[in-house]
Amino acid sequence: MPVGELIGDPVDTREELMAATYQALCEHGYADLTIQRISDQFPKSKSLLYHHYDSKDELLVDFLGFVLDHLETTLPHDEGATAADELTCLLDHVFPTNPTTEQARFLRAIIELRAQAATNPECQTQCTRSTQYFHAQFSQIIERGIADGSFRTVEPDPVASLLVTTIEGAMLQQATTDTEMLTTVRSELDIYIERRLMTADEVDE
Amino acid sequence: MPVGELIGDPVDTREELMAATYQALCEHGYADLTIQRISDQFPKSKSLLYHHYDSKDELLVDFLGFVLDHLETTLPHDEGATAADELTCLLDHVFPTNPTTEQARFLRAIIELRAQAATNPECQTQCTRSTQYFHAQFSQIIERGIADGSFRTVEPDPVASLLVTTIEGAMLQQATTDTEMLTTVRSELDIYIERRLMTADEVDE
Repeated sequence: MPVGELIGDPVDTREELMAATYQALCEHGYADLTIQRISDQFPKSKSLLYHHYDSKDELLVDFLGFVLDHLETTLPHDEGATAADELTCLLDHVFPTNPTTEQARFLRAIIELRAQAATNPECQTQCTRSTQYFHAQFSQIIERGIADGSFRTVEPDPVASLLVTTIEGAMLQQATTDTEMLTTVRSELDIYIERRLMTADEVDE
Repeated sequence: MPVGELIGDPVDTREELMAATYQALCEHGYADLTIQRISDQFPKSKSLLYHHYDSKDELLVDFLGFVLDHLETTLPHDEGATAADELTCLLDHVFPTNPTTEQARFLRAIIELRAQAATNPECQTQCTRSTQYFHAQFSQIIERGIADGSFRTVEPDPVASLLVTTIEGAMLQQATTDTEMLTTVRSELDIYIERRLMTADEVDE
């Protein structure tokens, strides 16, 4: 997502720091990210940066939380939509099959950050929160579809788990390989959803 | 996998270096990995290490390739098995739902290494090779099942793509969150495979 989309107009020092971190990450990648490079993108002083964060790691954990918050608060919601439409809309949001250059760069930065969770418990907490959040979103839509009779009566948890896991795999693949499977995987997910969730009438329509 | 399983008895200097890298990665994680720490696990001299590799990055790219080679060469093959059994066997191999502590540590190291592909083209080449290799394995099994009539006539590519992507998502999730979805996701994949591939007779059996 473009930095404008992620940060808008930064309203305070934290948002300015988040915007600076985003730009430095896109420009240099995680491995070559330094406080100096973040500071280069920050319109205020480096000492102000250190006033907010003791270390680069602390700043990056906050940045990861900020990005996840952003993903959550920008989820599209259409109260009038059917459960099937809402599911499609959520998948479109979290699984762009034709990412822009900027989205691709951002995704690479997110995967590099996310990999830190392998050894950083605070990063792990953020990643767990994100996975659980999207799992809950899918579960709620599935529950709604079951309640209004448009979806089969299934256990929402396993279906939501498969969807979240496949999306995370698509993100990893997109960031770390040059395979071109995204469109295919998304179409196949649609087939899975149709067969697993739609009642015969819905499929026939 | 235990180091013994990964390396066996190292037969040459390269394998000794691979074993040393594996142990250092498991012990320190990617972020704190240094040539010194790899060298500490290496029974020979540090200068010999530098004789083989110009830099830590070069060593790690070779290590990633070594690990992927290992995953490929240890794939179970049972010529007499049905396509359905072969599919289950491959999934069991690449998608352990109850990893040991050592498997979990190794997976974390692999995800950290794999994230380097976001900015390192040589890492990306290795990751692409791995994704394509497993995609080809799944495709071949599906083709065999279609040819012998035990699977429905489907396009193998999208099904193989979904399987590989979900497995990669499960690896990422396992390494970076403390959610416990693996068993659920695997069961749900089995349901997907059954509905997508099995002919009515196979399902009823």
